[in-house]
Amino acid sequence: MNEFDIIKRYFSQGIKDSNVLLSIGDDAALVRADPEQALAICVDTLIESVHFLKTTKAADIAYKAVAVNLSDLAAMGASPQWITLSLTLPAFDAAWLTGFSEGLTDICKEYKVALIGGDTTRGPLSVTVQAHGFVPVDKALKRHGTKTGDKIFVTKALGLAALGLQVMQGKIQIDNAEILINELNRPEPAVQQGLLLREYANSCIDISDGFLADLQHILEAGKVGAAIDLTKLPVADAILDQSLKLQAALTGGDDYGLCFTVAPEKVSNLLKAFSENNFPCYEVGEVTVDRGLLLLNQEQYNLDLGNSGFLHF
Amino acid sequence: MNEFDIIKRYFSQGIKDSNVLLSIGDDAALVRADPEQALAICVDTLIESVHFLKTTKAADIAYKAVAVNLSDLAAMGASPQWITLSLTLPAFDAAWLTGFSEGLTDICKEYKVALIGGDTTRGPLSVTVQAHGFVPVDKALKRHGTKTGDKIFVTKALGLAALGLQVMQGKIQIDNAEILINELNRPEPAVQQGLLLREYANSCIDISDGFLADLQHILEAGKVGAAIDLTKLPVADAILDQSLKLQAALTGGDDYGLCFTVAPEKVSNLLKAFSENNFPCYEVGEVTVDRGLLLLNQEQYNLDLGNSGFLHF
Repeated sequence: MNEFDIIKRYFSQGIKDSNVLLSIGDDAALVRADPEQALAICVDTLIESVHFLKTTKAADIAYKAVAVNLSDLAAMGASPQWITLSLTLPAFDAAWLTGFSEGLTDICKEYKVALIGGDTTRGPLSVTVQAHGFVPVDKALKRHGTKTGDKIFVTKALGLAALGLQVMQGKIQIDNAEILINELNRPEPAVQQGLLLREYANSCIDISDGFLADLQHILEAGKVGAAIDLTKLPVADAILDQSLKLQAALTGGDDYGLCFTVAPEKVSNLLKAFSENNFPCYEVGEVTVDRGLLLLNQEQYNLDLGNSGFLHF
Repeated sequence: MNEFDIIKRYFSQGIKDSNVLLSIGDDAALVRADPEQALAICVDTLIESVHFLKTTKAADIAYKAVAVNLSDLAAMGASPQWITLSLTLPAFDAAWLTGFSEGLTDICKEYKVALIGGDTTRGPLSVTVQAHGFVPVDKALKRHGTKTGDKIFVTKALGLAALGLQVMQGKIQIDNAEILINELNRPEPAVQQGLLLREYANSCIDISDGFLADLQHILEAGKVGAAIDLTKLPVADAILDQSLKLQAALTGGDDYGLCFTVAPEKVSNLLKAFSENNFPCYEVGEVTVDRGLLLLNQEQYNLDLGNSGFLHF
């Protein structure tokens, strides 16, 4: 099977979008952009043994490769539209490609994004997805914009994916670990939450490298600090050592929830909007004029915060 | 050095574009699209030992990774605007990154495209570039649209890069092979030619997998055939065996010229427009109603056309 056969068999999804003028099969795709909005563009690569385990199913790899990009769009408050895929495979493998295609189609249908183009090459397994979305120029959620006194929120319990990875690696044993492993393999990007946050957040980032590392990005961009109350940080429900769960929540990667800051006077309306949509929302601290990062109630836990985020180099 | 330091040091080019609302450094880039035009989007990945040799300089890898994408945009008649880069590296290497950054900046400045975002990860060396450009919706050059009787053209002598690769691999020896190796390492995308062709071409493709393979794409898309006169096919000037040169021109990859078809009544104006801009242009055959591919004057040469194009699988 050559690359053209592969594209035809595995990557023809038939998701309709009237703004896609020309899809897979030419030198480039042609799309119609919305003149009233900014186009948000992001790209992420997943590499075997770095971003997913050798044992990870092809369907989950595809799902996650798209999810992490939609999460970046969510963090901008952008509505996802189209993706491209660059897939590098060691060899043609029909079963693997069938699974990959299924996972890809699952998430594309779930979030109504169309695969409009891509590239297939032979080499060490790697998946690059680029995503495109729209956001009104003056409503985009940026990393900078944090103000002293802002309340700091996260959209979900943190550390579950990191615990799931530890389970998969045999480092810890937990009953009913499926929910943790599912968080690792099929993260749900907070796209709808990002759209809501256009009206409320002063700054926003998606939590991919670990809460502390990603929080530091918005604090640095805003030239501010923060006080985080560790007793308020939402963690896994599974019965586990509290310090282990908190450690995972603070420094584990792959959460793909949003971390954002909101001016105090907007907090009650924010909570109302999230509640009306049945979206969880957790206040975990406050932005401070002092540029340090203060962790309140740290003495209750046995934490090692030496490596406070997932850095790729 | 972590990925954030790498991005700051090696990928801050400072190329100004008022349509880039937010560049490298957030969850996504924000750009302003032109409401009057379609946005053309393409992506290509280069893998070590597949698309470039282990000995290829980092600057040349970067240059080519962008060039092959701009060539895809050229084949759509699109004007290039922005690129993103996903770079996977086995390890941090300051000298390599300095070279890569130089090659990237060279081509970005030459073609006035801005690097607006990307991703760096650790893994086997691979470079994915995605490019974005604009083309008026009704002027886009597509693969389909070829009409019986159209004249078939190419924009440059073919096979030089393939011969350059053979030199690099030690398979052939040629005096003054620099021009061939330069064609391999630093192909010049036919961006300006693509813009001109908006007014003349019925179909267009860039020649990346070999002339015959790429020609077949536009013939299949148009449900037509072609007669190609091998004595008219432009080949390398370097003194070499004619059959070897023609073989490289027909089946070698990496040319990155354009192959396009033009209605007979538009040919004289096409030639005038190309001549006024000092762009070469070679008529090599004609589109036929018979769906086969006829190679005229083949008997003069000793050709092996069994593998008539570079297929990735």
